[in-house]
Amino acid sequence: MKKQQTSESAKNLEKMLAVSPYNQLALSAVGPIKDVKIFDTTLRDGEQAPGIALNPEDKIRIAIALDDLGVDIMEAGFAASGETERDIIKELARSNLDAKLCSLARAVRSDIDAVLDTGAGMVHTFIATSELHMKYKLKMTPEQVKAKAVETVEYAKAHGLEVQFSCEDATRSELGFMLDVLKSVQDAGADSVNIPDTVGVIIPRAMGHLIGELRKELKIPISVHCHNDMGLAVANSMAAIDAGATICHVCMNGIGERCGNAALEEVVVNLFANYGIQTVDMSKIAQTSKLVERVTGFSIAGNKSIIGRNAFAHESGIHVHGVMSNTLTYEPFLPEMVGANREIAIGKHSGAHSIKGRLDELGVKFPEEHMPELLAMIKKIAIGGKMIDDAELLAIIDNIMWKTNTRAKIVSLDELTVLTGKNTTSTAVVTVTINGNDKRTAAETGVGPVDAAINAIKKAINDKITMEEYKLSAITGKSDSICEVTVMVKNVQNDNALAVGKAVGLDIVETSVDAMMAAINRDFARERNA
Amino acid sequence: MKKQQTSESAKNLEKMLAVSPYNQLALSAVGPIKDVKIFDTTLRDGEQAPGIALNPEDKIRIAIALDDLGVDIMEAGFAASGETERDIIKELARSNLDAKLCSLARAVRSDIDAVLDTGAGMVHTFIATSELHMKYKLKMTPEQVKAKAVETVEYAKAHGLEVQFSCEDATRSELGFMLDVLKSVQDAGADSVNIPDTVGVIIPRAMGHLIGELRKELKIPISVHCHNDMGLAVANSMAAIDAGATICHVCMNGIGERCGNAALEEVVVNLFANYGIQTVDMSKIAQTSKLVERVTGFSIAGNKSIIGRNAFAHESGIHVHGVMSNTLTYEPFLPEMVGANREIAIGKHSGAHSIKGRLDELGVKFPEEHMPELLAMIKKIAIGGKMIDDAELLAIIDNIMWKTNTRAKIVSLDELTVLTGKNTTSTAVVTVTINGNDKRTAAETGVGPVDAAINAIKKAINDKITMEEYKLSAITGKSDSICEVTVMVKNVQNDNALAVGKAVGLDIVETSVDAMMAAINRDFARERNA
Repeated sequence: MKKQQTSESAKNLEKMLAVSPYNQLALSAVGPIKDVKIFDTTLRDGEQAPGIALNPEDKIRIAIALDDLGVDIMEAGFAASGETERDIIKELARSNLDAKLCSLARAVRSDIDAVLDTGAGMVHTFIATSELHMKYKLKMTPEQVKAKAVETVEYAKAHGLEVQFSCEDATRSELGFMLDVLKSVQDAGADSVNIPDTVGVIIPRAMGHLIGELRKELKIPISVHCHNDMGLAVANSMAAIDAGATICHVCMNGIGERCGNAALEEVVVNLFANYGIQTVDMSKIAQTSKLVERVTGFSIAGNKSIIGRNAFAHESGIHVHGVMSNTLTYEPFLPEMVGANREIAIGKHSGAHSIKGRLDELGVKFPEEHMPELLAMIKKIAIGGKMIDDAELLAIIDNIMWKTNTRAKIVSLDELTVLTGKNTTSTAVVTVTINGNDKRTAAETGVGPVDAAINAIKKAINDKITMEEYKLSAITGKSDSICEVTVMVKNVQNDNALAVGKAVGLDIVETSVDAMMAAINRDFARERNA
Repeated sequence: MKKQQTSESAKNLEKMLAVSPYNQLALSAVGPIKDVKIFDTTLRDGEQAPGIALNPEDKIRIAIALDDLGVDIMEAGFAASGETERDIIKELARSNLDAKLCSLARAVRSDIDAVLDTGAGMVHTFIATSELHMKYKLKMTPEQVKAKAVETVEYAKAHGLEVQFSCEDATRSELGFMLDVLKSVQDAGADSVNIPDTVGVIIPRAMGHLIGELRKELKIPISVHCHNDMGLAVANSMAAIDAGATICHVCMNGIGERCGNAALEEVVVNLFANYGIQTVDMSKIAQTSKLVERVTGFSIAGNKSIIGRNAFAHESGIHVHGVMSNTLTYEPFLPEMVGANREIAIGKHSGAHSIKGRLDELGVKFPEEHMPELLAMIKKIAIGGKMIDDAELLAIIDNIMWKTNTRAKIVSLDELTVLTGKNTTSTAVVTVTINGNDKRTAAETGVGPVDAAINAIKKAINDKITMEEYKLSAITGKSDSICEVTVMVKNVQNDNALAVGKAVGLDIVETSVDAMMAAINRDFARERNA
């Protein structure tokens, strides 16, 4: 059974979005679109992207998440590429996925045999039909290509596989020849045909025309596979669906060869927003996207549609003001629809509306008369694109409200010595002074000089502070390059309050310690002023 | 004078691409498209993105690059937002840009006054016309909105500005009312009107319909401004142009509010590929994109269309094989067209074709019989998505060819002690043994413990090695998290040969030293075997 959002949740979903009323008007020219199958190729075309290489455990983890998301067909790999790949597909074949399990295969018998060996029930087999590919890559005549296509489909069908056949580089293939090949594989028993825009070179209007022509001549379902080289993968997929395609190849996060494939999340949301078709469980999109990002190591851009960190983030005064009145003023749909969250970011473009909203959420009372000063400080700190998070906002407020108090450091670092090396237990000795008179010295060890120094500081201030997060930005340059460290500490004796410190410097140990001391001073200042 | 690629280079450009032949067929239904003006809003809508905040110098640097690229109109900011913003626009107004300089303004007199103060010749003024925005954000009646629009346009025209007027949230505005407003501002003297898809909610078919309707009723040029919330910004922009829009708002790298604006690079390449229209100097796209990425700090995804690092990268065996026969088999156009480079990446999916091609380029002879071993090692190392660069490929080959030699370390680190701290000059003492008997001890200082340790090692081996690059990957976790260091060294006594070493560990100093020693051993092994 496919997991789907229920029809009741569908009604709620419809309240979650406000697309253009012109869409329905324009779509009235298109026949009714009732069902589209999501053919996911995250683990095949997605994994083929330079820079992505998954180990078997990772592939299986993603497969389970995609199945849970509710994709209809899952192309899990290219069986002929090696034994490891076949083992993964075998394991998935044994896992009783809800999705139909599919493997890629070139139009050669040995590739079909490799698929048969895995136990997958479906094969996606392909051969190029464009002159460019036939001449330069395949070095085959059109007749040879057609014969190979038919023979492979017959062979796969004879061995019980469900078969989807692709004309590779379809969008640069001559229509007459392509139709001849497609009709022949249809006669040979293919269950569906796929039209790949292999190099991302078609435009939506032309895709609609092409699929329309094929739809007239073929009986079996038509699938599309669009690449994003010109930024049109999703528009082309939707144009194909408008023209009669009923299967759509996608990859989570839009990964894939070169500029990637049509993004699953974009196709799925477009299908729902404009046709009311629910394909996968949209509320799981954000979590699945994050898993794929983490496991592949392939970062999503901040401005990626649907799932980028900015997709529901608002900073500029005008937008925040609008969103606070009615979120749909500056959002196409509510972030909950795809399991994401809204963020009212505080930065250079923030207005008083944003800051007040955030402070209200945090339950902080801040005198109205100091607002201009707060805005000015935020603008200053935010130059360079920095976003101000809650802990930092509180620290800025601390600074404004209790300036004289926090200017003098409450905890000062008088001495720090660290001994480290190869086959040496890193050891640090620190002396700190609290409130100008309480002098304390402590020594501690650690797995490295930074860890030792930080452990010693914690000990000196009686372990009332724990380190919650340590972030060192990447260094590229020489060994004396600038490094930036952010530390978040928690005060376990004061309601687990968090404080953040940041430092920039040339020496990793010294910079880390400076960041730690800044965080500790923020924490102490808050406690004093509480 | 606008800088453009010459008509001769245009002919060369046409040989650089192979788009779908179906495009021309489909576009025959569209009237001839001869000219489109590029309205760049990188410095306004782009800069408004959460996480971007440019200082004046950065804005001016980007403005100069965009002008050099050849955009027609440059919206450089929102004059009313503050004095700093006005100062930037003033400086640009004095800079004699080829592009027309424009500022955003709400439909209020004080915002127009702010624009007048800057010396910019053009204003882009806006007021929302959708029920949602008028009711919840503006709290104004349609009549009030229309009056405000007309009054503002009249005021701006009376003061000599060129005026573009936008109906904010146009794609969710009622057509009759919007047309009324647009005709009224046309009568008030507006030079062009802009149709923003403010929240990215329209589809190309509907955009075509909407612009077509407006085109019939209006005399002045129509502009579009599309957001990418649903992944359709570029397709919508192109649909608007097909229907008669002649000005297109774009941002470099597709930055902007939420999921960003239509990407300059995608719109420009689509215009050239399908209509043969040359707008900007396409050969400067890659460099301008990199500048904007660096200065804004807003990272481009690896799979970003046109300009992502994977846009012309090929790794999988089938694709590399095709590209080596004819690059257009797996590329929509040659990377040179946009000033980018092709990369044949070596990774998990590589076949023998790729490796041989790369080794030929490097001028390295590698025995055919060892190829399976080399491929197996690459697949193993590449798990996790790692790409193998030239230095690493050479190191792997070293390992295969001189296994017995390189297994024994030529230089071993016997002792390392580092003293560091606050107000302490970091000092390191090392003892290394070269070739098992040449024992050397050296002490050196540095700006931090890593620098000191590496300086001491360099000194111990007679400074024949210089460090060319030190990379420490970002650490997020606690102060005892895993870190990964890559070091590239140059042997100044041996033809400046490069060697790379890599290490992973918990201690930053120890891991850095391990990476350095690995690099040194690779270098010594090569020298011995030379």
